[in-house]
Amino acid sequence: MEESGPGSIKAIVFDTFGTLVDWRTSLVAQLTGFGQERGLQADWTALADAWRSSYEPSLDKVRRGATPWTVLDELHRASLIGLLPAFDLSSLTDQDIDFLVRGWHRLNPWPDVVPGLQRLRQRYIIGPLSNGNLSLMVNLAKFARLPWDVVFGADLFRHYKPDSETYLGVCDFLCLKPGQVMLGAAHNYDLRAADTLGLKTAFISRPTEFGPNQTTDLRPEGDWTIVAADIEDLAVKMGT
Amino acid sequence: MEESGPGSIKAIVFDTFGTLVDWRTSLVAQLTGFGQERGLQADWTALADAWRSSYEPSLDKVRRGATPWTVLDELHRASLIGLLPAFDLSSLTDQDIDFLVRGWHRLNPWPDVVPGLQRLRQRYIIGPLSNGNLSLMVNLAKFARLPWDVVFGADLFRHYKPDSETYLGVCDFLCLKPGQVMLGAAHNYDLRAADTLGLKTAFISRPTEFGPNQTTDLRPEGDWTIVAADIEDLAVKMGT
Repeated sequence: MEESGPGSIKAIVFDTFGTLVDWRTSLVAQLTGFGQERGLQADWTALADAWRSSYEPSLDKVRRGATPWTVLDELHRASLIGLLPAFDLSSLTDQDIDFLVRGWHRLNPWPDVVPGLQRLRQRYIIGPLSNGNLSLMVNLAKFARLPWDVVFGADLFRHYKPDSETYLGVCDFLCLKPGQVMLGAAHNYDLRAADTLGLKTAFISRPTEFGPNQTTDLRPEGDWTIVAADIEDLAVKMGT
Repeated sequence: MEESGPGSIKAIVFDTFGTLVDWRTSLVAQLTGFGQERGLQADWTALADAWRSSYEPSLDKVRRGATPWTVLDELHRASLIGLLPAFDLSSLTDQDIDFLVRGWHRLNPWPDVVPGLQRLRQRYIIGPLSNGNLSLMVNLAKFARLPWDVVFGADLFRHYKPDSETYLGVCDFLCLKPGQVMLGAAHNYDLRAADTLGLKTAFISRPTEFGPNQTTDLRPEGDWTIVAADIEDLAVKMGT
């Protein structure tokens, strides 16, 4: 089998937040439910969006070395604590905060994800390659019933995507060449990094990940190996 | 929930060779089939036993630092090459050797394993904790249909059991305390190491792992948390 042809792909790893799970709708629903239970008023949608907006800057500090290695659960916790005063939620207890941080372990998959992954799994090794930590990924997979063969979290590499250590680390652990591994992601920056290192790439369209007014990643911005409407479409295009 | 009680267990990790898969019967069948196909005569059972006998000494060299970190696939390869002359098999090609080394990725589970793991998975995070490398564990799980939530191989820790880095590494990655993690194994040495570090322990009886004349690990040699006849029995005893 030719190493560079499409038949050479042995494993497909997936970005998770946005690509597989609808973090925004799930998180807004959880925050709203929490508020109702506690009798708290806040703009929960704005809190979810602000929380996610703090994601890239907090990861960037780790990438640049300004913050020592810290897992995503801890970064989520710190950024939530930082947001509470502006949302008039400074009264939340440590236990409340723990509960909300664990909300990232309980996100619903897009409807095409589980059936699509089940098909892909018949022919390929499949797993997440997420900036989430391993335990987050394991809990999320149990909650969302993602049928993984293997689970990669950023703490296995102590690097966040798009650092090359993550993509190449997957190849090393699987004893595969970059050309035998495909990254599936809804984000062009992620695919760009994987492509530069020789991995195959699949753009998965998620035009409402960030809500109805999303302006980014609406279309592929590179010459990706596959462009798919969703994971079931990817399964078809990968011959499963 | 009390941290030290049986209800505190969140994850169960399993030794794999012997505990879950019947490496000896599987390997003898593969070697015999290979010999028939190639028209080669040899004592294939003796080769399988000799190959497995070289396992502990080769791991020990890595544990002691006499050999730099080397994954099990490579150790298997080196020990097979060392055995070939004595079995009059020096004519084997590199491709033959690769095929036989990959035989460790194609081992059959004991009949209780898949149904027992499926039950345990309903309540616990389950995964292998093997001295095999991650890719070996992933391929083996696909072959034997082991329904893992997470896969741990020795290369994640760059240490072989019973080095403490392996057991404690699992706890760290899962964000669990040692008392929340159970090791299931057919080997008392493995359980002893886990127990010393505070993990829970389950002895799984595999009295024919090494063939009909097995003399080791016929019974529990410590005060293990659970003693089970097999994985289905463990599932019952763990309330699933």
